[in-house]
Amino acid sequence: MRLDHTAAGVFPIAPTAFHADGRIDEASTDRLIEAYLAAGSTGVTVLGIMGEAPKLEPEESLGIATRFIKGMKNLPVIVGVSAPGFAAMRSLARASMDRGAAGVMIAPVPSLRTDDQITGYYRQAIEAIGDDIPFVIQDYPLTLSVQMTPKVIRQIVQDHPSCVMLKHEDWPGLEKITALRGFQAEGAMREISILTGNGGLFLDFEMERGADGAMTGYAFPEMLVDVVRFQKEGKRDAAHDLFDAHLPLLRYEQQQGVGLAVRKYTLMKRGILASDAQRKPGAGLSAKAKAEVDYLLARLARTDRRALAA
Amino acid sequence: MRLDHTAAGVFPIAPTAFHADGRIDEASTDRLIEAYLAAGSTGVTVLGIMGEAPKLEPEESLGIATRFIKGMKNLPVIVGVSAPGFAAMRSLARASMDRGAAGVMIAPVPSLRTDDQITGYYRQAIEAIGDDIPFVIQDYPLTLSVQMTPKVIRQIVQDHPSCVMLKHEDWPGLEKITALRGFQAEGAMREISILTGNGGLFLDFEMERGADGAMTGYAFPEMLVDVVRFQKEGKRDAAHDLFDAHLPLLRYEQQQGVGLAVRKYTLMKRGILASDAQRKPGAGLSAKAKAEVDYLLARLARTDRRALAA
Amino acid sequence: MRLDHTAAGVFPIAPTAFHADGRIDEASTDRLIEAYLAAGSTGVTVLGIMGEAPKLEPEESLGIATRFIKGMKNLPVIVGVSAPGFAAMRSLARASMDRGAAGVMIAPVPSLRTDDQITGYYRQAIEAIGDDIPFVIQDYPLTLSVQMTPKVIRQIVQDHPSCVMLKHEDWPGLEKITALRGFQAEGAMREISILTGNGGLFLDFEMERGADGAMTGYAFPEMLVDVVRFQKEGKRDAAHDLFDAHLPLLRYEQQQGVGLAVRKYTLMKRGILASDAQRKPGAGLSAKAKAEVDYLLARLARTDRRALAA
Amino acid sequence: MRLDHTAAGVFPIAPTAFHADGRIDEASTDRLIEAYLAAGSTGVTVLGIMGEAPKLEPEESLGIATRFIKGMKNLPVIVGVSAPGFAAMRSLARASMDRGAAGVMIAPVPSLRTDDQITGYYRQAIEAIGDDIPFVIQDYPLTLSVQMTPKVIRQIVQDHPSCVMLKHEDWPGLEKITALRGFQAEGAMREISILTGNGGLFLDFEMERGADGAMTGYAFPEMLVDVVRFQKEGKRDAAHDLFDAHLPLLRYEQQQGVGLAVRKYTLMKRGILASDAQRKPGAGLSAKAKAEVDYLLARLARTDRRALAA
Repeated sequence: MRLDHTAAGVFPIAPTAFHADGRIDEASTDRLIEAYLAAGSTGVTVLGIMGEAPKLEPEESLGIATRFIKGMKNLPVIVGVSAPGFAAMRSLARASMDRGAAGVMIAPVPSLRTDDQITGYYRQAIEAIGDDIPFVIQDYPLTLSVQMTPKVIRQIVQDHPSCVMLKHEDWPGLEKITALRGFQAEGAMREISILTGNGGLFLDFEMERGADGAMTGYAFPEMLVDVVRFQKEGKRDAAHDLFDAHLPLLRYEQQQGVGLAVRKYTLMKRGILASDAQRKPGAGLSAKAKAEVDYLLARLARTDRRALAA
Repeated sequence: MRLDHTAAGVFPIAPTAFHADGRIDEASTDRLIEAYLAAGSTGVTVLGIMGEAPKLEPEESLGIATRFIKGMKNLPVIVGVSAPGFAAMRSLARASMDRGAAGVMIAPVPSLRTDDQITGYYRQAIEAIGDDIPFVIQDYPLTLSVQMTPKVIRQIVQDHPSCVMLKHEDWPGLEKITALRGFQAEGAMREISILTGNGGLFLDFEMERGADGAMTGYAFPEMLVDVVRFQKEGKRDAAHDLFDAHLPLLRYEQQQGVGLAVRKYTLMKRGILASDAQRKPGAGLSAKAKAEVDYLLARLARTDRRALAA
Repeated sequence: MRLDHTAAGVFPIAPTAFHADGRIDEASTDRLIEAYLAAGSTGVTVLGIMGEAPKLEPEESLGIATRFIKGMKNLPVIVGVSAPGFAAMRSLARASMDRGAAGVMIAPVPSLRTDDQITGYYRQAIEAIGDDIPFVIQDYPLTLSVQMTPKVIRQIVQDHPSCVMLKHEDWPGLEKITALRGFQAEGAMREISILTGNGGLFLDFEMERGADGAMTGYAFPEMLVDVVRFQKEGKRDAAHDLFDAHLPLLRYEQQQGVGLAVRKYTLMKRGILASDAQRKPGAGLSAKAKAEVDYLLARLARTDRRALAA
Repeated sequence: MRLDHTAAGVFPIAPTAFHADGRIDEASTDRLIEAYLAAGSTGVTVLGIMGEAPKLEPEESLGIATRFIKGMKNLPVIVGVSAPGFAAMRSLARASMDRGAAGVMIAPVPSLRTDDQITGYYRQAIEAIGDDIPFVIQDYPLTLSVQMTPKVIRQIVQDHPSCVMLKHEDWPGLEKITALRGFQAEGAMREISILTGNGGLFLDFEMERGADGAMTGYAFPEMLVDVVRFQKEGKRDAAHDLFDAHLPLLRYEQQQGVGLAVRKYTLMKRGILASDAQRKPGAGLSAKAKAEVDYLLARLARTDRRALAA
């Protein structure tokens, strides 16, 4: 089961479940997996930025990847392997694939600036992990401060047959999807899967621009699944209606720095995570912020009854 | 009519109206003023970042400020005077006040990092413009890359009696409002007005945290005015209902870089601006993006009939 | 007298001479001009970053450019026209050329990241000022945070026949000179002049890599002139001996932020500037720092007697 | 043997020695240790930025620390434990201390901006590693993009009795040493050791401002030891004479990005490292650059015969 360019649907970005004391919480991990399966996910991505990957020891990272691979059954698991050095990237990538991962995701290091630096970085990274592992480009300028043009993404795709997907989370990013699909239409780039992130803030239109689905960690993956499905079925208004009902909460969750705390708090209220703890350094929610999330959930439940449980 | 800490309500951030060839469009400027008055604004801010201030010649800047001062009648006009050098800041500040401005707004230069650098910058700026001009701190890290803690803002307020307002547009920023109002409650900071920006993306909760109103350029200032009023009247749900109806469009407008193009396009559709032109360097909207804004306006009109005209 | 790709030698970056109270000091300006002529300069550049250009009013900028154009006689004067908006860039560029400038220098705005953004910016800038004005690319990542690869510079050169020179101040930057001269050798880029900046910190080797000379503001332009001449005459060791004697002071002057204060202090000690004042915001020297410069000058005078006067 | 505030002299920053294929080279490591002892070092720092620490696996890091601890005999070894997560920081810190390290060095993560963020980060870090481990603050804005004022450093020192040293590598940074020593003189901060880095570029004056010595990786630690000693003996001119002789090479080595390649190449020419290999991602030297280093070494050997071997 290897990732390829036909991947579509919703791959939630899984948070890493911790006990209040910072130990990894396996029972909560299993509930997360169940929830993703029940929501209709078509895969999952672990050890991303929102998975607090840099705070894990190497053996913990591999343990989490393995647990998801087993739990998600035959669905593809993408493992985030971004690291400051290629030795660590290689060892996690190869060990994950040995255990059954479908592919890996690689973000650029924040110091990269020029087009050549970015394509050169991916060249060295693929040389390190091997060209036999399907990989995903993570394009997230807001957090990583690396800006990739459509042409740079095309260059990476053309340089590396093992590149099969773009995790798109540029902001603004709608024109980028259009540009990339345009390259494909004119035969200037081979086909890749485009799943969009950035908390889902523009998923409604991203699908209309040509995305294949979503890869983000919004605490109601059911909504992402439905919006993607509605858009594929041509039910534009239904997609927007559902999306708009979630937008007030989604926008609240998509705040830089504090977003993961909102997400974990909501997943805890939904009974999926036992604790909303993050490993340090991490941000928490004030009582006022929690009350705001509660209010947003209550308002959401008027339209989408799946929020009632939260 | 000088700005003081009791300022409240909605001060739209005015775009600068240009003809397609880049000349300043005075008729459109007058329509903007009418629209702001009709919407129930309590003041206006000109020559901010979204006013394309750095692209104007000094005499153009003063001309725009003067036109708004006359047009807004007895309502306060705040003039953005941010500049790389204090000589230009001083001359625009003093000339604007001579013509009847209520106060000025000063953003930090992007190179500032430490708390001392920031407070030192405001000290030098106030020395340059004079301590007799009421001024507003602009706190906009996403664009300016300068991060001010609540303590730094308090220091500036305490150092300068002429500091009367904070234009708050940190993101996330809700806790900052709570912290500043907490300083006031415990007597550690004198009272200031807090108007929030950042496109209005969190205005619903900002009011609940203690903001006095909004200072941002969303193309429907009527909505900002109503949300502020509802919240002051304790009509929480009504405030959120109206806000949520606008959020899909507001979120679209609040995209970095392309936001001003969305805003000008909408104001043009509303019949307020004759052209959505920006001076160069500037971003435009693709046909696809315009169609998306049209769709969002049509959806909005189902709930808020004021969007029908657009 | 228009700048072209054959420009070579030393173009000092002129500081702007102020009286202690911030007014422009014309007598000191004239002494600077005399000193540059006496040192054997082949041109001069005014209103660069070290010329405190953003702190000047438009009419002051043009006044300074005009004074240098008259004073430098038949030698070329390059005018820095970098500005946040193209309207101001155009008006200074065209007015300077009308008064006899040889060309203009344009730095990218700090927000540019990708190759396309950079080449697009120069395209818009040249459209604004007109393609009949010879221009210089300023490549100074340490201060401007914009990184241009050799390929990007080549693209700008090939796109614009009016591009005649690169002010090279990347750090490290030696390989960039080699790459650009390589493009020329293989016929992939037309010839341009390369003058190096960055305080002169690598002038010794930059000449050996193919630079045509220096464009920087080190307080002893005589040294720059001699090093450039020695290298052109093949006197490698003599060039390095002289350079090395100045390096302790040059390194001290090349400190970010405080460098201009060191430079103006030294020029004041040399009797060229009447005051070392900067317009605000600006940095000054502590008593300890001044004593350190004095010590370095005394040590330098043992080898280069021209430092005796200082 | 625990590090305390009386630490002084020269602690070289050790590069990590690799074979050409990327494996750790233990024989070269042992020669490095010998060279540091022979040069008169008073300690050593391993796993710093120039030690390519992020490219090592956890067990490799501990292996290197252990080898240095054994090899340096009774001299103190400081272990760099900077990491994106506190779990990894804690495990390396405690394991290193168990094996006999004298203390640890902690750099801030690059995202920190405000004074409170920086002091808060150190608070969480010390909570994580324990307050019984002597630690060194690394202050290196050019690479880390975190700016600490003297007041912030004082706050960290006062908050944490286990803070015993500042690795000072701000640039410019002379006034910072003066400010910190001033705090001590007026009783506002307890005594700490200040060792300076930044390649040694200002060591000559840093000693005069009050530094206790150097902590940097210049390929001739003998020079650092002599300059520190001369300055402590009051032989100011002798210190500057020796320093100035090395400055052309030192400046060449202190280039961002390529500096480590210059350093490893020189250490290889000196017969200390068997290879100048870096783990990827890493920069290499062109043939032209190597010839430039050779030329600088030959020139240096005229004054300092210790460069002859190179």
